[in-house]
Amino acid sequence: MGSPDSIGNYLIARLSDHGIQHVFGVPGDFVLGFDKLLENSPIQLINTCDEQGAGFAADAYARLQGLGVVCVTYSVGGLKIANTTAQAFAEKSPVVVISGAPGTNERIKNPLLHHKVRDFDTQYKIFKELTVAATVLDNPDTAFAEIDRVLAAACRYKRPVYIELPRDIVNLSGSPSYQRYSYPESSNPDTLAAALNEAANLINAAHQPVILVDVEIHRFGLQDALLQFVEKTNIPIAETILGKSVINEFHPSYIGLYEGAMGNEFARQYVETSDCLIMLGVFLTDLNLGIFTAHLDPKRSISVTSEKTSIQLHNYEGIRLQDFVQGLVTADIQRRETKLPNRSEPPTVFSPVANQAITIARLFERLNFFLSNDMIVLADVGDALFAGIDLLIHGKTRFLSPAYYASLGFAVPAGIGAQMAHPNVRPLILVGDGAFQMTGMEVSTIVRYGLNPIIVVLNNGGYATERPMLDGKFNNVLPWRYSRIPEVLGVGQGFDIHTEDELEAALLESQLHVESFCILDVHLDPQDTSPALKRLTYALGQNV
Amino acid sequence: MGSPDSIGNYLIARLSDHGIQHVFGVPGDFVLGFDKLLENSPIQLINTCDEQGAGFAADAYARLQGLGVVCVTYSVGGLKIANTTAQAFAEKSPVVVISGAPGTNERIKNPLLHHKVRDFDTQYKIFKELTVAATVLDNPDTAFAEIDRVLAAACRYKRPVYIELPRDIVNLSGSPSYQRYSYPESSNPDTLAAALNEAANLINAAHQPVILVDVEIHRFGLQDALLQFVEKTNIPIAETILGKSVINEFHPSYIGLYEGAMGNEFARQYVETSDCLIMLGVFLTDLNLGIFTAHLDPKRSISVTSEKTSIQLHNYEGIRLQDFVQGLVTADIQRRETKLPNRSEPPTVFSPVANQAITIARLFERLNFFLSNDMIVLADVGDALFAGIDLLIHGKTRFLSPAYYASLGFAVPAGIGAQMAHPNVRPLILVGDGAFQMTGMEVSTIVRYGLNPIIVVLNNGGYATERPMLDGKFNNVLPWRYSRIPEVLGVGQGFDIHTEDELEAALLESQLHVESFCILDVHLDPQDTSPALKRLTYALGQNV
Repeated sequence: MGSPDSIGNYLIARLSDHGIQHVFGVPGDFVLGFDKLLENSPIQLINTCDEQGAGFAADAYARLQGLGVVCVTYSVGGLKIANTTAQAFAEKSPVVVISGAPGTNERIKNPLLHHKVRDFDTQYKIFKELTVAATVLDNPDTAFAEIDRVLAAACRYKRPVYIELPRDIVNLSGSPSYQRYSYPESSNPDTLAAALNEAANLINAAHQPVILVDVEIHRFGLQDALLQFVEKTNIPIAETILGKSVINEFHPSYIGLYEGAMGNEFARQYVETSDCLIMLGVFLTDLNLGIFTAHLDPKRSISVTSEKTSIQLHNYEGIRLQDFVQGLVTADIQRRETKLPNRSEPPTVFSPVANQAITIARLFERLNFFLSNDMIVLADVGDALFAGIDLLIHGKTRFLSPAYYASLGFAVPAGIGAQMAHPNVRPLILVGDGAFQMTGMEVSTIVRYGLNPIIVVLNNGGYATERPMLDGKFNNVLPWRYSRIPEVLGVGQGFDIHTEDELEAALLESQLHVESFCILDVHLDPQDTSPALKRLTYALGQNV
Repeated sequence: MGSPDSIGNYLIARLSDHGIQHVFGVPGDFVLGFDKLLENSPIQLINTCDEQGAGFAADAYARLQGLGVVCVTYSVGGLKIANTTAQAFAEKSPVVVISGAPGTNERIKNPLLHHKVRDFDTQYKIFKELTVAATVLDNPDTAFAEIDRVLAAACRYKRPVYIELPRDIVNLSGSPSYQRYSYPESSNPDTLAAALNEAANLINAAHQPVILVDVEIHRFGLQDALLQFVEKTNIPIAETILGKSVINEFHPSYIGLYEGAMGNEFARQYVETSDCLIMLGVFLTDLNLGIFTAHLDPKRSISVTSEKTSIQLHNYEGIRLQDFVQGLVTADIQRRETKLPNRSEPPTVFSPVANQAITIARLFERLNFFLSNDMIVLADVGDALFAGIDLLIHGKTRFLSPAYYASLGFAVPAGIGAQMAHPNVRPLILVGDGAFQMTGMEVSTIVRYGLNPIIVVLNNGGYATERPMLDGKFNNVLPWRYSRIPEVLGVGQGFDIHTEDELEAALLESQLHVESFCILDVHLDPQDTSPALKRLTYALGQNV
């Protein structure tokens, strides 16, 4: 299928270099040629039911693997993933969007070709708004260089990029003798040393330093370096909501989730009264800050992200986040004895009360020790996320959620991407009924590829996050019998759960049923929400 | 809920003026306030499972009612309907996109508010590419005028428009003393008279005039005027694929569907050898032209659309399509006797062969006389559309399909919009299995609002349109047991169909089962496609 130095094969080879083993997508005539190249390559093409599912799956894969790819056809495919690409942009997930397109030879005289919107570049213009780099590979002479440029941008900024592939270009040869494009590979050494020196002095002089970590520690793969820094210095560490599971949450230095007035009260006190707050990869979003209820003082802060390095009220330029974090590990920072109060560990026994209606609190109490080292949590928006905050996660980056962009419908397709990235890890998908009705039928893709997540549907009859803000019939959804979905797909195990003992039995059976997915329809009272969600919706409701 | 002269209530009143009785959408915190206003208004808010479903439903509603509305929240809602809005643009469907948004007071200092992508105007920029008019109602003084301007553009161009509603603006008062905006209400009378006179002379002098009609006759509601013109002059008439059902297809002057080499052979011959081709509202898309296999000579053509009036090789300006078509009715054009060959009417008896496997040909043979005056056909892309071309439609605009933009997944949600627009008409939804897996679970919305379509799933295991172009595993979909979906929803009637007698029994039972939806899972051989689809995929495959 085409020569090895064809543009299509070059793109596949570069994706393989980045560790890509799976691409998510739906075929269509403008991308069929490239799909065929993929089928004959070492990369597996994972077909989802709808492009939206592919977009979310690729996002999850990118968060775990360092890069994710979604491959679709022109307009009718590409425009269906505008939203999932926007989420990847907002939450810094490096997703490569590959879209087939009409051939360059078909665009002459601007005919009305099917799937065309306004002009042939409508889709390109839209994706320029949603990505950090975008290209149409319409020139074989520059195609290899363009592929390199765009993939480098995804890796540098950890944000989505867009590659449009006119179908008559796929099998043409590119020009191998191009100038390789690359970003600077290191920080300015003098600036880095100065910043680290100033940071070390501030930390050493402080009474109560504390580390706050966020999304970029996940994205730049700095979990191990961070752990070394924590264990060397013994400085307590808190996470933001998007930073959740950067560190094993059973670690003795972990003090909890910081989210302004919304999060853990001890962590809030500790962070906000600190005289040296070390923020690593932190973005000050409204949800990270508990709808702006946070009190963080820049004058007492060190803040380093991939975009900016600030110490107190001044900035340094030319410093890479990864160099700064690595630098902290070897910097001259003294170890200190920190007295933290004994944390209450989650119970390891759950005594189900027969015929006792299950509540959100008891559900998450049970899930907290259902979780094991070989599981990953995918939490959709709503109480799946907000009650999920209190789950203690064992492994690094074992909790994924769209905790800033907050697009409903992420968790089920994300489970596909997560298990493709980590085949030996079993996804625990937490999803509300409203979100499930958007994308939940991607369980079809789960069946098709033999995956085995455990899906917990929080069935409370509607959009529980919105009810406390302003209620109406529009917050209801139709009650589905989620446990009957395996009958439609011919595979899977369903459980209908109203009580604590039914929950217990279903979880134990799901643990044993590893050959396919399990779906637990957990019937909850529509008014039963977690304390975190109650606080959040009260604050969010002020602006409705 | 707010004063009657609030901006939110003004928008609702203008939509009511345009005949809107239903708005399709999914709630979200940035649009909750407006949703509540809708709930307390005469307009019914129809909640779909996913925004994509709402977008397609509003598109179908617009095609039948003259205007459709989809109402969503910021980014996570709006960007999910980029694709459905693109389809409305491409196929000239006047859909009003209303998106809630962060309040003007929340945008100061550009904070990282949830659902934000790059900047607060990212979504607005994207919808400017997909609409003919777009506005952000951030100024109470101009809000009323902006609403008028944008709705007028939707009606003038029959294309989508975008209204962004910052949530702190909804209940503010607008300025009623604004200058009303309106488009010119009529054509230039001298130019119109000259064009009609030239057209009449050419038609009268011709040996074999023929009328070809397309999408804009539907959109401008000119079906009755067209019928008067046809019956007055007795000139034969053909339809394009997007123009299908402009006229009752049992009409004696109707000669068939013109689609270049892909369509009806008699119609092709008649149109291409005509010495006076009268094209009304025709857009020369690749699918209308049978992938550019059409031979239409401008030197022998009259072509009038809402955008352009051409007679032979010259153009007229300032003529409205509706004035030209009305003008044809009263113009001095002589009636002629036209000898058309006797058409073979579809059989009105179907003798099912017991245990005979059902084929696509026999399925459509049976459906052709299953159709009645009180049904409307919604055809998804694939053989649902291409075999569907040969269905003879009774009423005007009783066949909807995305026959140019060709986005899979339209038909099921479109059935919701269609039945909301015409409550006494029963939708017959024809949908492939691949398309059903994208949006088919919107049957949930069908159940929620008590609708009763008959859904025929063409179950051939994958994307049959793509197999002949280039086949691979990517063209397969997982086999679902579509007839078991009623068990998940608790309502509906399912049928599993392998043979002709099973089909017959299911159709008869569906006719009687009017209290809810019926779903017919019709198992077809994966290689069994209609002759029209075979011709199309051969031509499309040349460029893959």
